[in-house]
Formats: sequence, structure tokens, C-alpha cells
Amino acid sequence: MIEQTEHHAPSCDAALSSAFTILGKRWNGLILGVLADGGAGFADLSRGLGSSISDSMLSGRLTELAEMGLIERQVSPGPPVSVRYTLTAAGQALIPALNSLADWARLHLEPNRG
Amino acid sequence: MIEQTEHHAPSCDAALSSAFTILGKRWNGLILGVLADGGAGFADLSRGLGSSISDSMLSGRLTELAEMGLIERQVSPGPPVSVRYTLTAAGQALIPALNSLADWARLHLEPNRG
Repeated sequence: MIEQTEHHAPSCDAALSSAFTILGKRWNGLILGVLADGGAGFADLSRGLGSSISDSMLSGRLTELAEMGLIERQVSPGPPVSVRYTLTAAGQALIPALNSLADWARLHLEPNRG
Repeated sequence: MIEQTEHHAPSCDAALSSAFTILGKRWNGLILGVLADGGAGFADLSRGLGSSISDSMLSGRLTELAEMGLIERQVSPGPPVSVRYTLTAAGQALIPALNSLADWARLHLEPNRG
């Protein structure tokens, strides 16, 4: 609920706040960004994100994103069993915003400073 | 540096990765979102973000965002001295992407679940 204070304090948009409940947690935005290029298995995702995410962290994030309805875990019964993660429609709807963020970073942030 | 692997592993876009170096840290996106409505002093920012950010956390985040060139700290000599934070041009350039994120959240995320 937004409280109007007498001297017009700025307040944060509730929708933006929900968006950053997800994207303000390390890895979530990048996981969705990797899946924007198509579905991926666990090992490919891990490789796509780089070396600094642990398997247990990635696994936890994937569970959360699935619970929020942004990604889907598809199991093919095999053998061998294979698991693949893909974006749901709600996850796919985020792609244009992720592209805007990437465009902004390209123009306004310095490349990784060591 | 992106390594091409033989079986076409997805990999995360370097620009998106830079964007989430900033926005994937709790509060940063929301601080920029509050400042998108205009400059604000420390107390107003704190109020705009809600009760769960501590002053020392907010202060640290403001310092980082200023070092990254996204916000500017303007001191008016007073008395009383007043300090105001505003978006730089690079920070303002992020507003359209923040708006896309908010639009997405409005359409695709449930309102805050308790």
C-alpha cells in the first residue's frame, strides 16, 4: 500500500518492487537470460552462467523460478532420464525487458572492470 | 570472454551480465526506480523504499551507484546543509527498461504474496 505523505515523498512502484523481488536476487535475471535463447539442461545452464555459481545455488534458483511460474522443468523419461528447463509464457514475456537492460548496459556501463 | 563449446551451450550475454551486476543486488533497482520520479534526499529515499532497508545499507548502495556513475550526490551548503540524490544521464537512460520491467510484473506476477 502506498502512503501519501504530505510533502510528496517519492515511493517505489509496487510493480517494480515485485519485479525486483525476483530480479534483485543474484543469478535470477541471468538464468532467465540464458533460457531466453532456448531451453537448456542443468549442465548447460551452469556452463552458460560461468564458473561462479554452485550447483546447489543453481538448483535452488531453478526451483524458485519454477514456483513463480517463470520457468518449467520438463523431464523426458529416457533412459537416460533427461531434464530440460524452458521459459513459460510469463518468462518469455520478460525477454523484451531483458533486451532493453542489455542494450542499456552496452551503452552506459563500462565493460567488466577487473 | 565467451567460449564457444562444441555442442552449442547457451551462454549469457555479457551486457546482460553487466546489467545484473548492478540490478541483481537487492535494492539497487528500486533505488534507481524511486529516483526516476525525481531527485530525493536520504530520508525520502529511505521512506520511499519502505521499512526494511537499514540506513547503513542504503548509504552503501548510494555510494556504489554513485561510483558506477548512475546517480549523483548534490550537496547544498546551507545552512542547513542538504544532500540530494539524482540520476545521471546514464541512470536516466535506464528508465525505459525499468518501465518495461514494471509493466511485465503488472501483467505476469501475482501481487505480493504474504
